[in-house]
Amino acid sequence: MVTLDKVYQAAFVLKDAARKTDLIYSQKLSGKSEIYLKTENLQVTGSFKLRGAYYKISKLTEEQKKAGIIACSAGNHAQGVALAATKMGAKSVICMPDGAPISKVEATKALGAEVVLVPGAYDDAYAHACKLRDETGATMIHPFDDDEVIAGQGTIGLEIMEQLPDVDAVIVPIGGGGLISGVAYAVKQLNPNVKVYGVQAERAASMFGSRKKGEAITLDRVSTFADGIAVKHPGDITFDMVQKYVDDIVTVTEDEIATAILTLIEKQKLIAEGAGAVSVAAAMFGKLPIEGKKVVCVVSGGNIDVNILSRVITRGLVTTGRNTTLQIALEDKPGQLLGVSTIISKCGGNVVSVHHERSDANMAVASCFLHIGMETRDFEQIEEIKSELRKAGFQIVE
Amino acid sequence: MVTLDKVYQAAFVLKDAARKTDLIYSQKLSGKSEIYLKTENLQVTGSFKLRGAYYKISKLTEEQKKAGIIACSAGNHAQGVALAATKMGAKSVICMPDGAPISKVEATKALGAEVVLVPGAYDDAYAHACKLRDETGATMIHPFDDDEVIAGQGTIGLEIMEQLPDVDAVIVPIGGGGLISGVAYAVKQLNPNVKVYGVQAERAASMFGSRKKGEAITLDRVSTFADGIAVKHPGDITFDMVQKYVDDIVTVTEDEIATAILTLIEKQKLIAEGAGAVSVAAAMFGKLPIEGKKVVCVVSGGNIDVNILSRVITRGLVTTGRNTTLQIALEDKPGQLLGVSTIISKCGGNVVSVHHERSDANMAVASCFLHIGMETRDFEQIEEIKSELRKAGFQIVE
Repeated sequence: MVTLDKVYQAAFVLKDAARKTDLIYSQKLSGKSEIYLKTENLQVTGSFKLRGAYYKISKLTEEQKKAGIIACSAGNHAQGVALAATKMGAKSVICMPDGAPISKVEATKALGAEVVLVPGAYDDAYAHACKLRDETGATMIHPFDDDEVIAGQGTIGLEIMEQLPDVDAVIVPIGGGGLISGVAYAVKQLNPNVKVYGVQAERAASMFGSRKKGEAITLDRVSTFADGIAVKHPGDITFDMVQKYVDDIVTVTEDEIATAILTLIEKQKLIAEGAGAVSVAAAMFGKLPIEGKKVVCVVSGGNIDVNILSRVITRGLVTTGRNTTLQIALEDKPGQLLGVSTIISKCGGNVVSVHHERSDANMAVASCFLHIGMETRDFEQIEEIKSELRKAGFQIVE
Repeated sequence: MVTLDKVYQAAFVLKDAARKTDLIYSQKLSGKSEIYLKTENLQVTGSFKLRGAYYKISKLTEEQKKAGIIACSAGNHAQGVALAATKMGAKSVICMPDGAPISKVEATKALGAEVVLVPGAYDDAYAHACKLRDETGATMIHPFDDDEVIAGQGTIGLEIMEQLPDVDAVIVPIGGGGLISGVAYAVKQLNPNVKVYGVQAERAASMFGSRKKGEAITLDRVSTFADGIAVKHPGDITFDMVQKYVDDIVTVTEDEIATAILTLIEKQKLIAEGAGAVSVAAAMFGKLPIEGKKVVCVVSGGNIDVNILSRVITRGLVTTGRNTTLQIALEDKPGQLLGVSTIISKCGGNVVSVHHERSDANMAVASCFLHIGMETRDFEQIEEIKSELRKAGFQIVE
């Protein structure tokens, strides 16, 4: 059972290993409500997972530590366990599906773990980890469905109550439910009037669905770029705790998550992963009754693959009018590209890519297509460029 | 004159307005030295500039405040002055060159300033600001060459000494020199044994050149994407203070700055602007004698244009083997694209763009080019893909 004693003990133990992350007031996200960010993306290992893993391992006997630690994870839990074990002088083996990004494999190794790449998906890696545990007698650390792990995550709740004693509501991402179980428990013990809300990705809404049905459900498939919370089935302990301590759960879309990530970059200079940004997305897109309230969004982690980050930013630039591609039908005669370039340049657009095609079988013989990509200031500037091009006789294909 | 009294007074005044930003130990940047980051990119307004502006304005008489505040800046100083003036109930007018990014104009307006867009470059905006000052009797806030402004920035030095009392060295970005003058002064007053190093962009090395020559020089042109430190001429006060209190100045290249930005994103989950990342670049690229030392890098700001950020990330992905474009010469017959796709997919590459051309006049009639862009894991995977393609008879154009 999770108790407040355990959470306080975890907080004491964690002084050696985890950062007491900053609670940052966000003027730019605030408006109808006052928004504060609990920056667990700035935690050592880039996510809150270190807290639970470290406290859990600290409670093992010397004998258990000697027998080693095992975990299965392709993500934040892997790094949390690796660092926690290393700090306490225990050997750790982390099983990962063999498609795991090299950056996560390397990061986990760098923290002192042995990484075993298992062919297949997460379930295969999990089966292999169980086999290793049975063979070696090592202790396996569950990513969320464990009292000590939950108590460790609960230290975030204590810190929030200390950093903002008059907080009205806390918004927390939900994957398996370990983070929100710990935070909700700790917060409600100290002040039952503080609301605790959970957020899931719409495309991985297992806890949301379970709560609706009144029992834990299993999703066939979860598909969200917020991979840190793509969990098919809530934990038993966490489902019960969420039922008991969480006021409501809402979902956010992929586009809302992407917008929240871009907003955190632009307005707060913080990198959040998809899972870490769902709390901010829920606040930004009005999913919760927080008007006039002091609200803490837990930004749970920042370990986003840079290729994905690059796509999120690119997409965000397009949806906010700062990057656009025009397709222009040209007569196939000299000087046309010059004409287009001159107009774009005069309007202040910055051309970044040009593709000129004349071999499309569907087109009239004397015409061709120009695809021109450019950086722009805003939608107004894009409209100005389009209007000038049309005035000069160019035909823009919408 | 800057005095320690003023710096301490500034620290007291700033309690109302500025964040005492976190000092974050970076395990991942540490190795030969212990690296700590003073995160002024997480300061309100996204840079340290608020500190100097706020203290300066707090020292004005009621009459002066009533007459209003003027500043000229297209960047961080604009936002610092705007917020400081608004917080103290003064009206502010910020002159900006009319090419300033809309995001900076909007951010400055949102902080309560009136923005005047002046046709031309920075110098034109500056001239207009001086004219407005003379006409209205408002007080103009210099971005760096001012005792109170320098004292305000010096509060960062006090915080560093409090947050890490046994620091050995502090690395500080230099533009006009206001930040480093304040930090070096405060740090050396408290402990003259702490080294203070300055860093400039190689392509905007006015203070570096001035120090070398022994007198303040003026550069004809500065061209760096670290626009926050693109200053042609150091201040008079700041040049003298740098001569007196700074141990050494080094420069970093554009590519080193870009790599530092990407590293801060991936390893620390922090967004830094070019100017803010030069300190980290100097530490990463071995420009300074800091082996075995406890070192603080001041990350001075995070206000980077997202289009530029996107380019920095894209470039970083290419230079680290996580994104590549192959150009393949194909025979112009059916099934070729399928063959290439199959191999790339089998090797785990993720295709993101395809351009297929057959109309190049320089090519043999029966051949064509395929440009195929893909996300990859590392250079090893790229080599594997290339080797498999060659084995299958495809010709890769290097």
